[in-house]
Amino acid sequence: MPPVISFIGKPDSGKTTLLEKLIPELHRRGYRIGTIKHHVHTFEMDKPGKDTWRHKQAGASTVALSSPTGLGIIRDVPEDLTIEELIGRYYGDIDLVITEGYKRLGLPKIEVFRSALHAEPLPDRDETWVAMVSDAAGPADLPGFCLDDVAGLADFLEERFIKPFPRQKTSLLVNGQPVYLNAFVESFIRQAITGMTCSLKGCQNPEEIIITIRQGAAE
Amino acid sequence: MPPVISFIGKPDSGKTTLLEKLIPELHRRGYRIGTIKHHVHTFEMDKPGKDTWRHKQAGASTVALSSPTGLGIIRDVPEDLTIEELIGRYYGDIDLVITEGYKRLGLPKIEVFRSALHAEPLPDRDETWVAMVSDAAGPADLPGFCLDDVAGLADFLEERFIKPFPRQKTSLLVNGQPVYLNAFVESFIRQAITGMTCSLKGCQNPEEIIITIRQGAAE
Repeated sequence: MPPVISFIGKPDSGKTTLLEKLIPELHRRGYRIGTIKHHVHTFEMDKPGKDTWRHKQAGASTVALSSPTGLGIIRDVPEDLTIEELIGRYYGDIDLVITEGYKRLGLPKIEVFRSALHAEPLPDRDETWVAMVSDAAGPADLPGFCLDDVAGLADFLEERFIKPFPRQKTSLLVNGQPVYLNAFVESFIRQAITGMTCSLKGCQNPEEIIITIRQGAAE
Repeated sequence: MPPVISFIGKPDSGKTTLLEKLIPELHRRGYRIGTIKHHVHTFEMDKPGKDTWRHKQAGASTVALSSPTGLGIIRDVPEDLTIEELIGRYYGDIDLVITEGYKRLGLPKIEVFRSALHAEPLPDRDETWVAMVSDAAGPADLPGFCLDDVAGLADFLEERFIKPFPRQKTSLLVNGQPVYLNAFVESFIRQAITGMTCSLKGCQNPEEIIITIRQGAAE
């Protein structure tokens, strides 16, 4: 599973504005960045009136808009997906996942704080905070970055989160949850599956193999 | 891979309007319906100014908006995904996939034709046409449905496309393309993988197992 870092902060502290500078910097360094935004209410992502929007309104469970450069998918989910499930299912080709919010989870967090707007940072800082980005001097025990030190922040993320966690060859998701594979188990599963499938028609040069097993489905 | 049917027709023939009645009818019968719309230009699915839109503009490869009831994902693709790849990756839990367009592919097709608007149906009808929905008498050699006979059309799709293709327990996608598994190979792969993974921590009651292997990634 790719590494994930959560940007948090009081309202209007400038999280998205910071990400609008940070993402291009990381992208320029050759990394594939994914983002996740959590929304507690029924959301509208599509444009009302568009065909895909009309399909979804009519009761389609999954709708997609596919083009030569991009893909958009909107789908029902039976319940809030955990961040692990989301990342496991859709972010396998990503080097760093950045979330906004998800403050209550045990994800590593970077707080964005602007003293011009708020008197104090968030009150409940704990050991999951890994840095603070601020227009003021931060806490002495936490790495701090100025709001415009995007390169410094990108260095920090690269060293601490991206480089130590290169993309894995094999990922296993059971009931939506990623399962940790040590090097032996990873190699065993990968080689067994590659061997099992490589003699099937169309499987000779398998750059990517995805196997999905759903016990509940028909035989 | 779930069955797929493509609705085609001349401009303004009422494809989306028909789907707005057909999808609820199939949904009411207990089926999970997915739709795919193809777009040849750069698309905009998200709402300009929203956080996810801003992340994508900034260069994120994949952005998601996650809520307790729905999930929206917008991602870059290196090239137009084939319909098989799209369905293999994202429609595994769907009973019938309906596309609008994709006229040139060899998918089974239902043409929507309104004689009030056009003098003739599409000129290049071939053996991939399976029915016509029209306000006029259709060709004698093709099942025909009135524009408002949504129940009859749903019956036809149910008998011809949904019931003969129940969801498979195991799907295999190699380099994005679904690979056909006969009953023996399906059972062999499913039981081998279930056996291989079931002693790992967290894998005891595997309702769903997804394994992804990317040969190019890091060891």
